[in-house]
Amino acid sequence: YAQSTSVLYGVVDISLAKATGKPVELAGGAPLTNGSSRWGLRGTEDLGGGLKASFNLEAQLDPTTGTGSGGFIRASNLSIAGGFGALKFGRTLTPSYWGVRAWELTSAANYNVVSSQFQYAGLNARNSDEISYTSPSMGGFTVTLGHVLKGDNEGVGKMDLNLIYKNGPWSGGLSYNKLRDKGSNQVVGVSYNFGTVKLAASYHDVTDAGRGKGFTLGASVNTGPILVIVDAARDTENKDTDLLLEGRYPLSKRTFLYAAHTRNGKGKAPTDVNATMFGVRHNF
Amino acid sequence: YAQSTSVLYGVVDISLAKATGKPVELAGGAPLTNGSSRWGLRGTEDLGGGLKASFNLEAQLDPTTGTGSGGFIRASNLSIAGGFGALKFGRTLTPSYWGVRAWELTSAANYNVVSSQFQYAGLNARNSDEISYTSPSMGGFTVTLGHVLKGDNEGVGKMDLNLIYKNGPWSGGLSYNKLRDKGSNQVVGVSYNFGTVKLAASYHDVTDAGRGKGFTLGASVNTGPILVIVDAARDTENKDTDLLLEGRYPLSKRTFLYAAHTRNGKGKAPTDVNATMFGVRHNF
Amino acid sequence: YAQSTSVLYGVVDISLAKATGKPVELAGGAPLTNGSSRWGLRGTEDLGGGLKASFNLEAQLDPTTGTGSGGFIRASNLSIAGGFGALKFGRTLTPSYWGVRAWELTSAANYNVVSSQFQYAGLNARNSDEISYTSPSMGGFTVTLGHVLKGDNEGVGKMDLNLIYKNGPWSGGLSYNKLRDKGSNQVVGVSYNFGTVKLAASYHDVTDAGRGKGFTLGASVNTGPILVIVDAARDTENKDTDLLLEGRYPLSKRTFLYAAHTRNGKGKAPTDVNATMFGVRHNF
Repeated sequence: YAQSTSVLYGVVDISLAKATGKPVELAGGAPLTNGSSRWGLRGTEDLGGGLKASFNLEAQLDPTTGTGSGGFIRASNLSIAGGFGALKFGRTLTPSYWGVRAWELTSAANYNVVSSQFQYAGLNARNSDEISYTSPSMGGFTVTLGHVLKGDNEGVGKMDLNLIYKNGPWSGGLSYNKLRDKGSNQVVGVSYNFGTVKLAASYHDVTDAGRGKGFTLGASVNTGPILVIVDAARDTENKDTDLLLEGRYPLSKRTFLYAAHTRNGKGKAPTDVNATMFGVRHNF
Repeated sequence: YAQSTSVLYGVVDISLAKATGKPVELAGGAPLTNGSSRWGLRGTEDLGGGLKASFNLEAQLDPTTGTGSGGFIRASNLSIAGGFGALKFGRTLTPSYWGVRAWELTSAANYNVVSSQFQYAGLNARNSDEISYTSPSMGGFTVTLGHVLKGDNEGVGKMDLNLIYKNGPWSGGLSYNKLRDKGSNQVVGVSYNFGTVKLAASYHDVTDAGRGKGFTLGASVNTGPILVIVDAARDTENKDTDLLLEGRYPLSKRTFLYAAHTRNGKGKAPTDVNATMFGVRHNF
Repeated sequence: YAQSTSVLYGVVDISLAKATGKPVELAGGAPLTNGSSRWGLRGTEDLGGGLKASFNLEAQLDPTTGTGSGGFIRASNLSIAGGFGALKFGRTLTPSYWGVRAWELTSAANYNVVSSQFQYAGLNARNSDEISYTSPSMGGFTVTLGHVLKGDNEGVGKMDLNLIYKNGPWSGGLSYNKLRDKGSNQVVGVSYNFGTVKLAASYHDVTDAGRGKGFTLGASVNTGPILVIVDAARDTENKDTDLLLEGRYPLSKRTFLYAAHTRNGKGKAPTDVNATMFGVRHNF
């Protein structure tokens, strides 16, 4: 066994938070921190001939209490990659998630308005038992096709795919998922980076997943060290707008302070919560 | 603390499998994968004077879902070794297991017929609370004597031992275990490596553990990169034969593809399952 | 991610033990081992300007069975430290614990009489959701002020603090904790190191935590390789004395053998147990 090929990594993220209906508290998880605290292992092995095998195991925890998830619920998968693209097997972030991540302004922070209003094309960010293929980049485009066998999903097969475009200041993503016996959910989003300012907009039709329809519009402003993000997600069907105002101040490349205020209104979900938090995120 | 002395290691093993009575599925554990996925820590410290202290902690997981075992159920032990041999304390693979492992053809793959028919001298592969002594090699022979105190086993002491012989093409093992208030279980097996072909045969009398009596006979053929194994385990008491046909194709020293077909017939246990699987095992 | 900044560490500690009312057993946890077995991750990042960020995640396990705690219950916290001192957030050992640790003779071994009689200023050694500040050392004195918000403790805020003095042969500690709606618990202790012999004494008033009042008196003698500790903790209110006689023999800097005999008499708690244990502790 070659020790050097596997890397230990993680995140510890804690905030002081106040949400509607709850007291001021030390918070260690979604939606009251920037990221979910985690630890993981990953590694890549060169198989020769341009082929690589890699793995990822990632567990989640609440650092305010130490409570863990009792498993690698964030990631546990195996990939074989080469010139043909990459095959991945196991539990992983969905293609729909990555399609949203391509243009979303907060790098999918726990308190982002896209997920609070529409989740990731209507669904949780992860699939168990996923088999996926990601193409190589072709003129800035990549495609990921994911599938969960009906034998692994109580008799109902699931398709989940994305189309991602990255080219200079442009980033765009199309997310699409469908259970065999239901209709589809879809999202299209795009961002443009002017330099100091980055704008993002998206359209979501995720009624089949029990959410609504609508759009998001947001901007991030990067002034010297401080990054400020404002974002809004409007569910036009259920007449609800979720809002985020966030600022980040980096202490280093791996550690930053953040302040965020969110409004998660009563839309399809009966939530009606405002929250304010001040936190520290440390990546290791 | 010296970081360099502890090593992080593991296995991720996933297959596409079809077993009698179940749909096609992505499988992440026994008996439908070559190995059980795991992660572990181990290290050795030189105490001087030929003495060494070492530890091993090893947890298990299902990589298709990330579900873990919530503990180091595969290994959690401490050893002191020197010229006198090695003392080990804690949870570990049994002497009976190592006695079988000495001659078994698949390196105790999850789908091996020896364990499906007879387990490891009739028992699970691991003991908790084991105290064991392993002798140094004497002319190719080593002995391991294991004991579980009655105070650690609901009032019934357990003895578990092996005698292993390794010399050039020959490997042999005797496994023996006995609960204080019951009869003994025993296995003797041997393998001979002709070079390309390796043969193995064994005799099992494990009725006291609730299994039967019988023998196994198998061969492995190593042609260039591909390894093919055929193995059969016959329970003569319960008139049942378990079969394995397996092929392995290495992608590297740490990663291989495998295809296996197993027949686990109705013997003492009321199982009657055929299974076919195609998988990838990655050691890190 | 920089792999080199995070360190993997731990303890495996197993004893052969006999306690009143129980059979001889292999023991893997308190109070029958020197330490609790554990594994953890920790790291420190230099933020520049004298500032540092650090984290610690530490889980517990019983090595005789491999059973784990399912989380980082021993530590999961994030710190920012600099010339001003250190701020820490999350689950951690309490200030009261460190106030006791400053003078206690066994380095808070699982079988120490201070904790069996009085715990750590009357409480468990750890707080979840703690926010603490530790001052820099000022003439040998450091102060740690800890607080758990009422929002994190079922509506009742908790204060926990210490004052520690270290100067040459002297070590002293004051521990103090108080729930908002209850009285306070307090301990003062001191040790003096004569060289071969070290003496320690302390006074405890922890009735508010459901324990008693009283004192401890003990000595450690370090003769060549062997360390011998005798310690007594007297609850004068409940007329009970707990006793420890311990010897340690180092095999290396990281590994030692120990023998201990404890008497945990019937005081406030209805325990009445004598225990004898022989063990090995390996730090990695």
